[in-house]
Amino acid sequence: MRIAVLGAGSWGTALAIVLAENVHDVWLWDRDAARARRRQEEREDATFLPGLKLPATFTVTGDLAAALRGAAMVVFVVPSHTLRATAARVAASGLLATDARVVSATKGLEEGTHERMSEVLREELNVDAARIVSLVGPSHAEEVSRAIPTSLVAAGTNDAACRAVQEAFVRPYLRVYTNDDIVGVEVATALKNSIAIAAGILDGLGCGDNTKAALVTRGLAEITRLGLAMGARSETFSGLAGVGDLVVTCLSRHSRNRRVGEAIGRGQTLEQALRELVMVAEGVRTTRAAVDLGRKLGVELPIIEMVHRVLFAGHDPREAVQMLMTRPPRAESRGVSSQSAKGGRA
Amino acid sequence: MRIAVLGAGSWGTALAIVLAENVHDVWLWDRDAARARRRQEEREDATFLPGLKLPATFTVTGDLAAALRGAAMVVFVVPSHTLRATAARVAASGLLATDARVVSATKGLEEGTHERMSEVLREELNVDAARIVSLVGPSHAEEVSRAIPTSLVAAGTNDAACRAVQEAFVRPYLRVYTNDDIVGVEVATALKNSIAIAAGILDGLGCGDNTKAALVTRGLAEITRLGLAMGARSETFSGLAGVGDLVVTCLSRHSRNRRVGEAIGRGQTLEQALRELVMVAEGVRTTRAAVDLGRKLGVELPIIEMVHRVLFAGHDPREAVQMLMTRPPRAESRGVSSQSAKGGRA
Repeated sequence: MRIAVLGAGSWGTALAIVLAENVHDVWLWDRDAARARRRQEEREDATFLPGLKLPATFTVTGDLAAALRGAAMVVFVVPSHTLRATAARVAASGLLATDARVVSATKGLEEGTHERMSEVLREELNVDAARIVSLVGPSHAEEVSRAIPTSLVAAGTNDAACRAVQEAFVRPYLRVYTNDDIVGVEVATALKNSIAIAAGILDGLGCGDNTKAALVTRGLAEITRLGLAMGARSETFSGLAGVGDLVVTCLSRHSRNRRVGEAIGRGQTLEQALRELVMVAEGVRTTRAAVDLGRKLGVELPIIEMVHRVLFAGHDPREAVQMLMTRPPRAESRGVSSQSAKGGRA
Repeated sequence: MRIAVLGAGSWGTALAIVLAENVHDVWLWDRDAARARRRQEEREDATFLPGLKLPATFTVTGDLAAALRGAAMVVFVVPSHTLRATAARVAASGLLATDARVVSATKGLEEGTHERMSEVLREELNVDAARIVSLVGPSHAEEVSRAIPTSLVAAGTNDAACRAVQEAFVRPYLRVYTNDDIVGVEVATALKNSIAIAAGILDGLGCGDNTKAALVTRGLAEITRLGLAMGARSETFSGLAGVGDLVVTCLSRHSRNRRVGEAIGRGQTLEQALRELVMVAEGVRTTRAAVDLGRKLGVELPIIEMVHRVLFAGHDPREAVQMLMTRPPRAESRGVSSQSAKGGRA
């Protein structure tokens, strides 16, 4: 099958390698034409996945039309804030076949509209929602490209579409589960980046594993609350796109969002933290969208609101953590507040 | 309040310090009388928490009767396989006041009976189940004793009892939530140790964060299935005793169960792995009990069964992981199996 992968960052490149290993004819579109030519000649990706050879059934191109022509599957892996513009270019090209599969591997919520990535694609490509499959899960590109065992979720409302994506990507080291709750999968995978920034802040402040485990737990509850208000199913948040992706993003040294938080916890500004990172930290944008969405839907998001204040309002991270820890303790699942914390440590 | 803490391992000692900071009159019972005398004189715990000074309102004793006399709360923190004998000694002493609070901070399932720790206490102490509160959550003793922010759950069927435990333990760095699902809390916290051994095996084999995140996710599903069959509520498994404790145990360098698994993943035998550890790895015993229980209740536990085969039947850990990864991929939440994985990596 001929497949276009749009977006040549580390994840786009890793997914393209997986597809090429499955002997598909892969066209990887890099918006930077000079870099595309270099990669196509040198057969490696020095920026994102150094030392890795690109398979033979694999073309890197800066020409979007060349990538799209004859593609039976189009995989979007561009940063969330460029997805709408990229999809609009695809639509304008007239080269998206009417029966081509559409896959979103972009994670985030759009600022302003608060839309999920598949909603942005549906609007710009003018296709039926059932045609779009979201492919996510706990998966650092660095590890997938080294064939380290990984599990993903292919989510969508059309089972045949999900299975087609599953079949295209499955490898001995890559399990792909299907799931029909695309709302839950997209919300979970977008919001976990905000929680990962909070986890990084804890790391930067020198907090321990106990603190981070509590954060992951309360963060999952927060993401689930917002997801349910958006129509998701609760069990999705206990799955790979929920707990799985949250765990890997909050705890792994590879995680960019966690690293941004860590730099801020150590006292850097957001600008300094982002400058050090060659790649995009989706969580910064998603935090803005999530806070807006929480307020609009009347869902309490204390951790994400705290991240928002630290990132954009100069709130002291140490104070923010203190504040989260010393709210009056409650009943865990019933939300009944109880007596407040006692005095300072002796 | 006078409080007896029975069991002077790292967690018992850390909890006793918390209670002493809250100005309770704490009596820590150490079954090793010589060590108790040494600790009481030197005011520190060189074995488990080196460098830490014991507060003034804190007595270490090898005399169980002295610890129990006049106690308004008795906290059990002995290893799971000694809980029944310890509780029987407490009952035989006749020193458990009829209105004393009973707290279980022991994690595990009893081998043979498959009983939860609060069930063992109820039987041996001959007290009403509602009097017993289980205190658990993502909490390495090493971190709690250094005042690193930590959250716990006080679970029991009697709300007043849970609140009394919450009030006794809460500190500015220690949040305590109440929860009325003691079955879920005890099952989750016991079984997570088996999953932690599996996580360690992955570490020992050199697997990555993706693999571990998938394991945590599938492990949580497995624990939840068994818990539901035992009468627990599903949301408990998304809480601190579920996801929280699972995450900290599977990912932290402090985790003893994870370390046992890591040694085995590196090629050591179970005996070698346990010999290197001065402390108890509860997961080894719990894995036996969980496998029995799963078979009895007809609940599929593929990861825990795999850990069991590696620990007790000499199954090659590498093969076991391979087996778990290459089962036919399924629908994530609907359990529908689909086509099998493709051939080997090029």
